[in-house]
Amino acid sequence: MSNKYEEIAQAAIKLFEQKGYHATSVQDIADEVGLQKGSLYHYISSKEELLMKITQQSISGFNRRLEKIIETQVSAKDRLILAIQNHVVSVAANLEMTTVLLREALSLEPEHHTVIKNETDRYLSLWAQIIDEGVKAGEFKPGNSRLIALAILGSCNWVYRWYQEGGKLTPEEIGSYFAHIFIDGIKK
Amino acid sequence: MSNKYEEIAQAAIKLFEQKGYHATSVQDIADEVGLQKGSLYHYISSKEELLMKITQQSISGFNRRLEKIIETQVSAKDRLILAIQNHVVSVAANLEMTTVLLREALSLEPEHHTVIKNETDRYLSLWAQIIDEGVKAGEFKPGNSRLIALAILGSCNWVYRWYQEGGKLTPEEIGSYFAHIFIDGIKK
Repeated sequence: MSNKYEEIAQAAIKLFEQKGYHATSVQDIADEVGLQKGSLYHYISSKEELLMKITQQSISGFNRRLEKIIETQVSAKDRLILAIQNHVVSVAANLEMTTVLLREALSLEPEHHTVIKNETDRYLSLWAQIIDEGVKAGEFKPGNSRLIALAILGSCNWVYRWYQEGGKLTPEEIGSYFAHIFIDGIKK
Repeated sequence: MSNKYEEIAQAAIKLFEQKGYHATSVQDIADEVGLQKGSLYHYISSKEELLMKITQQSISGFNRRLEKIIETQVSAKDRLILAIQNHVVSVAANLEMTTVLLREALSLEPEHHTVIKNETDRYLSLWAQIIDEGVKAGEFKPGNSRLIALAILGSCNWVYRWYQEGGKLTPEEIGSYFAHIFIDGIKK
């Protein structure tokens, strides 16, 4: 991808986060990067395409990082701690992009939305897998692993709504705190 | 409030949930209730006013119900269980309105958004209060009650994103499951 495309994507992330996808026009994005609207269309075919690429990059990153954590040769408990910390830290480090993923993806056309939905479902399954493995290993109480995963993901996703840079706690501390609540909540 | 206003508000909730606030026009709302746009303005002054009233009704309901639970003469643990169950059940029972509150309130003009933000902050403080009281009573481990409240609210709010009527679990069962994870996660 060209540097110009990257610049356009960054501008779109910023505008989608600030104003929302629907309220952002292609003209706004062109203005932000100092291009004529006509020139912008050399790099992107539509606002929809930008939203699709941004949200796909975001959810793919979450999946890739979680897959790596699942392969780590530590206890399920430690994998779950790593997963929670990683998710919270990623949300905080990419606050604008995560906001676009979590808040704006619903504006995608159905065929694109389905792609993101499938990746999101895969992410949920990976979380459930860690929990199932912990139950199998006798580390966690038997339970509804998908529901536990949804509880954890809810807490960790919601961080995008209240996290402020420079607050009292670092993202690492928030992640660690959440991790220990959930570990104590489901351990055997 | 007139029945006609109620009908308009219900139509707006439905449309804001389905299409989003920005993508919904006053004309759409008028069409939904079978009024001319001009006649609609006898009942509402603007789309903004509708969004404000809807979100305020929603968050006020959450606050009112939680205040009642706080007054209940049971242990802090049982109050927290009631609060979690109540929140999840309310989300599921008012799925469209809660979606408008959680997803669309950010579209309010700053002065209105501040009103909702203050009510939301109050809601968070009420949750933290239950936790603080549980710590004081020796039921919960000492901890960061606001952060615990944010973890719980994240899980419970996120339900609006994945809950589907007629699913395997009732809202009561989901709330009860979440409650026991969090109680085990913070109990002394």
